[in-house]
Amino acid sequence: MTKKTKVNAAILIIGNEILSGRTQDTNTSTLATWLNSIGVKVNEVRVIPDIEKTIIDTLNFLRKENNYVFTTGGIGPTHDDITAQSVSKAFGLKYEIHKEAFKILEAYYQPGEFNEGRKKMVWMPENAELILNPTSGAPGFNVENVFCLPGVPSILKSMLGGLKNRIVGGEPILSFTINLRTVESEIANSLSKVQDQNKDVEIGSYPFFHAGKLGVSIVLRSENKNKIDNCNSQILKFIKEKKIEVVDR
Amino acid sequence: MTKKTKVNAAILIIGNEILSGRTQDTNTSTLATWLNSIGVKVNEVRVIPDIEKTIIDTLNFLRKENNYVFTTGGIGPTHDDITAQSVSKAFGLKYEIHKEAFKILEAYYQPGEFNEGRKKMVWMPENAELILNPTSGAPGFNVENVFCLPGVPSILKSMLGGLKNRIVGGEPILSFTINLRTVESEIANSLSKVQDQNKDVEIGSYPFFHAGKLGVSIVLRSENKNKIDNCNSQILKFIKEKKIEVVDR
Repeated sequence: MTKKTKVNAAILIIGNEILSGRTQDTNTSTLATWLNSIGVKVNEVRVIPDIEKTIIDTLNFLRKENNYVFTTGGIGPTHDDITAQSVSKAFGLKYEIHKEAFKILEAYYQPGEFNEGRKKMVWMPENAELILNPTSGAPGFNVENVFCLPGVPSILKSMLGGLKNRIVGGEPILSFTINLRTVESEIANSLSKVQDQNKDVEIGSYPFFHAGKLGVSIVLRSENKNKIDNCNSQILKFIKEKKIEVVDR
Repeated sequence: MTKKTKVNAAILIIGNEILSGRTQDTNTSTLATWLNSIGVKVNEVRVIPDIEKTIIDTLNFLRKENNYVFTTGGIGPTHDDITAQSVSKAFGLKYEIHKEAFKILEAYYQPGEFNEGRKKMVWMPENAELILNPTSGAPGFNVENVFCLPGVPSILKSMLGGLKNRIVGGEPILSFTINLRTVESEIANSLSKVQDQNKDVEIGSYPFFHAGKLGVSIVLRSENKNKIDNCNSQILKFIKEKKIEVVDR
């Protein structure tokens, strides 16, 4: 197997409603799970307000630091939807009517329904590539390594399928979980030794409380299955010695 | 009423499990809702991995840019819990046993249960102020304007009550929501005019789908009730003209 380069991404959540606590973001988890499955590691997530300068500055930083940037939110028809104009300015591109998007929405709406508000949604950075929207018509868009998606979680989800061929991932990041009937402090030292001997494997330890009982999930992550297996053996060895029970969660 | 200065904060979520998509963050929403209620506006949220240099650099940036920084995660007993040592380095403080925390945990656990793993949780930046934990014993801590809380949502929630007197907020940010049986594009232009005439009020527009029907929530946010009322009157005027129904959500 040839080793591919590591591929990473940042997620940029744009929206006052997340920062006010009014809306619970779920797009981070959706995007991160999907990106991991296609071999893209999420380095960082930022949530920022609907302020043009903040969007421009943050995007210009993140797009240079990461292979990909995925933005969510701010591409609807109202005055607080300023992602497309901000992305245009970030790239120094014209903000203009996207002819293909116009045709899509003209066909999508009934005659007379393609009103001024909806027409705002076809304004994009010049030469943007569209990201089709099978749920509600209005497309997202892509400029260089930046992919702009809507904030509504069900619509965002429905658009990921169409994106897959445009994202080139590295080796998929494999993940293996061991659930134990124990508490973190019981295994902390042993787990720390395993981590020291397996620097390439990311070992996470997460307490859980399920069906009235405490437990710990140990999560092993790596691009390399052998390394995960090796790490798993070492963990199984010490939990056997400590007589800790492995459980379904 | 004397006008207080605006007070802002950043939230720093520390944890690979959020970036991998394995865990859905809910602490942002909890903290943001609570901070807003005490007059602290959240400017920014960042999610970063369990990497010491990243934690140090991000924290040193955020703590200078904001009145307060709240971190979540990484203060447990395992090898991947590196928040306390990273915060110590960020402030150039010794990382040492906190005597008061030691006493608390010594009293909290049964004799013989205060093992090596648990003892790790009393290591903190020197002279840190404790944030008491009524749920599971192990305290969080506070250095200058940085407050370090655990990642487990139920534990984090239980610790906020004890923090309230240590955060000095500005005017509470008031929020008023109008739910309409319409779609965003129908009201986009009128709403945009209201925003232009009410620059001080943050007007958000959020589509919803509830009980089989589409609607839009308009959210008005400001420290000043009169400004919200004035803005609300202007919105009620145009929705009456447009014969749009106001609904409970």
